[in-house]
Amino acid sequence: MRKTVLALALLGAGGLAAAGEGMWVPQQLPEIAGPLKARGLQLDVNQLADLTGDPLGAIVSIGGCTAGFVSPDGLVATNHHCAYGAIQLNSTAERDLLKDGFYAASLGEELSAGPNARVFVIDQIRDVTDQVMAKVTPRLGGADRARAIEAAQKALVAECEADGGVRCTVYSFFGGMQYRLFRQLEIRDVRLVYAPPGAIGKYGGDVDNWMWPRHTGDFAFYRAYVGPDGKPAAYAEDNVPYRPKRHLRIAAEGLQAGDFAMVAGYPGVTFRYALAAEFEHNVEWAYPYRIAMLGDLLAIVAAAGERDRDVQIKYASLNASWNNVMKNLTGQLEGFARMDAGALKRAREQAVLDWLKTRGRAARPALDAHAALQRIHAERRASAERDLLLNTFANLGLFDAAKRIHRNAIEREKPDAERASGYQQRDQATLEGHLRQLERRFDPAVDRALLGYLLKRYVLLPADQRLPELDAWLGGSDAATIDARLATAYAGTELGDTGKRLEWLKADRAAIEASDDAFLQFAVQLTPALLRLEEEGRRLAGEDQRHRPAFLQAVIDYNRSIGQAVYPDANGSLRITFGNVMGYSPRDAVNYAPFTTLQGILEKDTGVDPFDSPANQLDLIRAGAFGGRASAALGSVPVNFLTDMDVTGGNSGSPTLNARGELVGLVFDMNWESVSSNWVFNPELTRTIHVDIRYMLWVMEQVFPGPRLLQEMGVRAAE
Amino acid sequence: MRKTVLALALLGAGGLAAAGEGMWVPQQLPEIAGPLKARGLQLDVNQLADLTGDPLGAIVSIGGCTAGFVSPDGLVATNHHCAYGAIQLNSTAERDLLKDGFYAASLGEELSAGPNARVFVIDQIRDVTDQVMAKVTPRLGGADRARAIEAAQKALVAECEADGGVRCTVYSFFGGMQYRLFRQLEIRDVRLVYAPPGAIGKYGGDVDNWMWPRHTGDFAFYRAYVGPDGKPAAYAEDNVPYRPKRHLRIAAEGLQAGDFAMVAGYPGVTFRYALAAEFEHNVEWAYPYRIAMLGDLLAIVAAAGERDRDVQIKYASLNASWNNVMKNLTGQLEGFARMDAGALKRAREQAVLDWLKTRGRAARPALDAHAALQRIHAERRASAERDLLLNTFANLGLFDAAKRIHRNAIEREKPDAERASGYQQRDQATLEGHLRQLERRFDPAVDRALLGYLLKRYVLLPADQRLPELDAWLGGSDAATIDARLATAYAGTELGDTGKRLEWLKADRAAIEASDDAFLQFAVQLTPALLRLEEEGRRLAGEDQRHRPAFLQAVIDYNRSIGQAVYPDANGSLRITFGNVMGYSPRDAVNYAPFTTLQGILEKDTGVDPFDSPANQLDLIRAGAFGGRASAALGSVPVNFLTDMDVTGGNSGSPTLNARGELVGLVFDMNWESVSSNWVFNPELTRTIHVDIRYMLWVMEQVFPGPRLLQEMGVRAAE
Repeated sequence: MRKTVLALALLGAGGLAAAGEGMWVPQQLPEIAGPLKARGLQLDVNQLADLTGDPLGAIVSIGGCTAGFVSPDGLVATNHHCAYGAIQLNSTAERDLLKDGFYAASLGEELSAGPNARVFVIDQIRDVTDQVMAKVTPRLGGADRARAIEAAQKALVAECEADGGVRCTVYSFFGGMQYRLFRQLEIRDVRLVYAPPGAIGKYGGDVDNWMWPRHTGDFAFYRAYVGPDGKPAAYAEDNVPYRPKRHLRIAAEGLQAGDFAMVAGYPGVTFRYALAAEFEHNVEWAYPYRIAMLGDLLAIVAAAGERDRDVQIKYASLNASWNNVMKNLTGQLEGFARMDAGALKRAREQAVLDWLKTRGRAARPALDAHAALQRIHAERRASAERDLLLNTFANLGLFDAAKRIHRNAIEREKPDAERASGYQQRDQATLEGHLRQLERRFDPAVDRALLGYLLKRYVLLPADQRLPELDAWLGGSDAATIDARLATAYAGTELGDTGKRLEWLKADRAAIEASDDAFLQFAVQLTPALLRLEEEGRRLAGEDQRHRPAFLQAVIDYNRSIGQAVYPDANGSLRITFGNVMGYSPRDAVNYAPFTTLQGILEKDTGVDPFDSPANQLDLIRAGAFGGRASAALGSVPVNFLTDMDVTGGNSGSPTLNARGELVGLVFDMNWESVSSNWVFNPELTRTIHVDIRYMLWVMEQVFPGPRLLQEMGVRAAE
Repeated sequence: MRKTVLALALLGAGGLAAAGEGMWVPQQLPEIAGPLKARGLQLDVNQLADLTGDPLGAIVSIGGCTAGFVSPDGLVATNHHCAYGAIQLNSTAERDLLKDGFYAASLGEELSAGPNARVFVIDQIRDVTDQVMAKVTPRLGGADRARAIEAAQKALVAECEADGGVRCTVYSFFGGMQYRLFRQLEIRDVRLVYAPPGAIGKYGGDVDNWMWPRHTGDFAFYRAYVGPDGKPAAYAEDNVPYRPKRHLRIAAEGLQAGDFAMVAGYPGVTFRYALAAEFEHNVEWAYPYRIAMLGDLLAIVAAAGERDRDVQIKYASLNASWNNVMKNLTGQLEGFARMDAGALKRAREQAVLDWLKTRGRAARPALDAHAALQRIHAERRASAERDLLLNTFANLGLFDAAKRIHRNAIEREKPDAERASGYQQRDQATLEGHLRQLERRFDPAVDRALLGYLLKRYVLLPADQRLPELDAWLGGSDAATIDARLATAYAGTELGDTGKRLEWLKADRAAIEASDDAFLQFAVQLTPALLRLEEEGRRLAGEDQRHRPAFLQAVIDYNRSIGQAVYPDANGSLRITFGNVMGYSPRDAVNYAPFTTLQGILEKDTGVDPFDSPANQLDLIRAGAFGGRASAALGSVPVNFLTDMDVTGGNSGSPTLNARGELVGLVFDMNWESVSSNWVFNPELTRTIHVDIRYMLWVMEQVFPGPRLLQEMGVRAAE
């Protein structure tokens, strides 16, 4: 009797209706119509599944973040931290938009968000598994397998993008079990329209990042522009606002505790189906190592920025990103320890293996796949430190620029379809934008210090992990030699100059390889080694793709057999998650309410960054000037709120929708206790943090006014 | 209309029934019978007011802490931290009772709590205002006034104590407006019976001190012993357990959220009627200065204890006390800032002054008194740094011993009634005990470092604050001279030896003054200066007493006129406070529940002090072995709980009583947000922290068993 009750309880905890777990592919929505309705959805599920309908047609990707159209004239709402790079690009020490905020009082004052800013509007998702795997035989392994898959994907993308103006991407699900092609309109002229002052948009800074209770006005507005012909075009004076098919209606009344809420967005990556050994590698080595390394890199940037606001601004975005990752990894480790996640992962994997062993010969392929994946992991683990250091190094500042210039010249010698990803014709605009904006994000002294730090760690690697090409370039392993080598390299390069970088981008391979620019020569010397490592990674990826689907199919079958939810790991593609407004108990005798209010801003105020609200905001709160945006239940304006949805990085900026699909806020963070949910979902502690529409409107009405935008969004003054 | 509602709301907040504010003198209980009943008291108020009845007859003072008889054989329950000194006195590096706990399995194994341990059983409170003030004319001022009051008090005490075996104390209320004589039986043989391991009794240590949520098993048991004749006597082998008239019944079912609770105890000191200027002096100067100074002193002790567990044990008690004060002061400053207490105090004082100004000539004396108190405060403020440094110095280690020996010899030359407080015949046993137990709390190297630190701060004082006698002894102001002077002094004294100290305590003044013991000589040289400062303090005290009652009467009259509670500031005398079990919200979106549970101990466990629960306790919790002590509502054993009562230091160890006057726990702390309530009571944030009787019983039944005591208290095994 007790056993039955327990079994039912387990089903409840893992089942669909009981928790907000699940990042659902739109195609899955009909399958989960029951739980959606049970949680409170009022829309028809088929309407919700329509990519170009209302509301999904209004949800866009802006590359790394999500956003939503909120007016018929292409106004886009997203997070302040998603627009942070664009705000930074438009800031100088004299005109500090990061600090003071920005409001374009007219269309003409809207500022370019930079050459690489994008708005992607999805219109199609197609299953292309058969096409991707057409030439992949079961026995095909290693780099050949990876190359065959890459080639098929490139062909699909090229075909999809043939008419121009769209961006197509093939996403892999369940480790290569399924492939889907996503087609998106690619809008390339994106402008900054509104950002509140940093003391609102980034209120609480790194101290409050990932934390609850939270009081961050993490919102900003972009606008999508197209050419006068209505087609996507690069930034140009005479471009016009894009008119999206769909835009979200504002539900100014917001949500109450318990209310249904949902989010469509582009979650980046989760590892819920990772092997226990892969998990343990991260917990035991990779996370602690990265935390320490990022701490050191941040200290270098902080020291340089101490007396130089210009350096501070240039590295603000990188600084925020590294801090964010460091805090996230630390929180994950805390979370894993709290729930003994290692034991949980091992037990779950063992349960699948035990279940497979009861299934006789039919289970043989899955068990073999599991053994193969363990071997692949062991290989990756052996070179993990080298890979992390070189990856960080090769993607930083001047070396990154030189590397891309050289590699691009190499790839350009091939037919477009055979070029490496990131260097095809379709990537050239992004590449140029990347090289162009380095000037706003680069300081030679800081860059040199960061590269120097990484090289000094590199030379401590064991001999079998070293790259002869890099060792030759360095000419020695002691700190003085490395410093001198870098000093010479920085003195002998012109790549710090944007004009020169763009000139070299056009040069051919022979010219680059003959150049006496020290950084180009550095890249030329290192490229064979980087290509070798890339090929090694391709071999392992091919092996992985060969075995992982078989094992994950077993995991899926097992999960279904015990009533567990089955949805693919996040992979950057469009997903839907839903849940309800609710608080949580982080520990014994402590309960967190699901809403924070303006009063909490008064409580936190110290007058010192990051708790230095604008003076007029403090005055308004003290005066109780809620302007009709207060919640009756709370007696104040709600600032942020919690739901039990399932999100991760990439979901930032996602419009939060009510049961009727109307805008009630924006996702901007997860709580500290939930960052570990990327690996192991814990329904009791996992919460998503949203900025409340009522706070957004209150700020735009009273604190840092944006009257034109309120009118454009059809917001009426509250009574 | 709105004004009336507001006025009523104000009355509600400040009135008696709405909040737990108020430390009531037992005589006031009939006056507050209404609120007591409204909150839930089931006893007759007249019974509660009976000092020798049930339950008050069971409440005792143990000097600095409160406690309660819990058996007919003199078993006394109090806090672990109140018995800490006694546990420490009985601990060595080899037999570490602080760490391992202690349980006397039989009467014979009970250990002396030390020569100075006391249990005071109250049997009488008398108003003696007329007698104290008999010879004090309105015009009598300064030191003469203070001396007249002292003399009258001493005479009253001497008369009261004439029959022996009792301790009498005159307490001043409302700055000298009223005086009451308290008579207590003085039990001088106190023994340690039970203390849980430090990882239970001091769980959370200084990290959790003042904090909620809390999980501290802060309880211990003493037993009161008397001579075979039933009369108080010093420790002796053949003493027998004292049989109190009253002892508390154990209510093993504990309390639930919302339940009535009350506490009788000996709160030390509050400053709720202090002037705004006095408050500001503490906030702006005294607290920050003391926090910094204690931090430095603690660092000296910590450095010395790092490699020497013996030094750690010797200074454990002082260390705990300094840490406690430092954290308390820090919390007070935080609390003051949170509620802008300075502005509040100023506004309240101004309201009284404004009210007085409407009252014409009748208000003149109160206004004059206010002006006089401002002048007195300015004088005190001028020498505050010197007084704090010298006070700390003169009460520390070897100098304190030498000073007391010398001073005692001086005082002994006078008739007993004229001797200074602390040096009368009635004080001799305490004095001897104090000198004796120094050996367990003193290390010459640490003592020297502490005195050296204080002297080096002293020499930085401006010239007009220096003492010529001390300057002469030092012979210079540079660090090297001070170090050398102290080195000579420590090398030239025998006072580190307990036998020598006690010998010198018996010596006469001439012998001491002729001694060549370096520390005695130091004391002899400094005594004139200390006496001068004492006389200066006496003068200010006399002036204070001359003026403060007139102003405080105006404050009382004003408070009554606006419906505010009127009770005297805490002064170390017996008080009663009451309230209900309730949590609180420390900040926006955070709610604290009123009970913690065993589960919280699992959550906090790190395996490292101060979160290193005994292994068997963790096992029991994991196994859900609650032994019938769990609360059904919580699904676990409650560990600590909160009420909205009004307590302060000195209330520690107070038995917490339910509506029928039965024992349901012990007071052991206030929450962090409430430490500022010593100056300004904040009903929304002020909470008292109690250890729950159910946790005490669970620990004594299962974790660190004390079966003999459970039986003695009449506790039946839970079902």
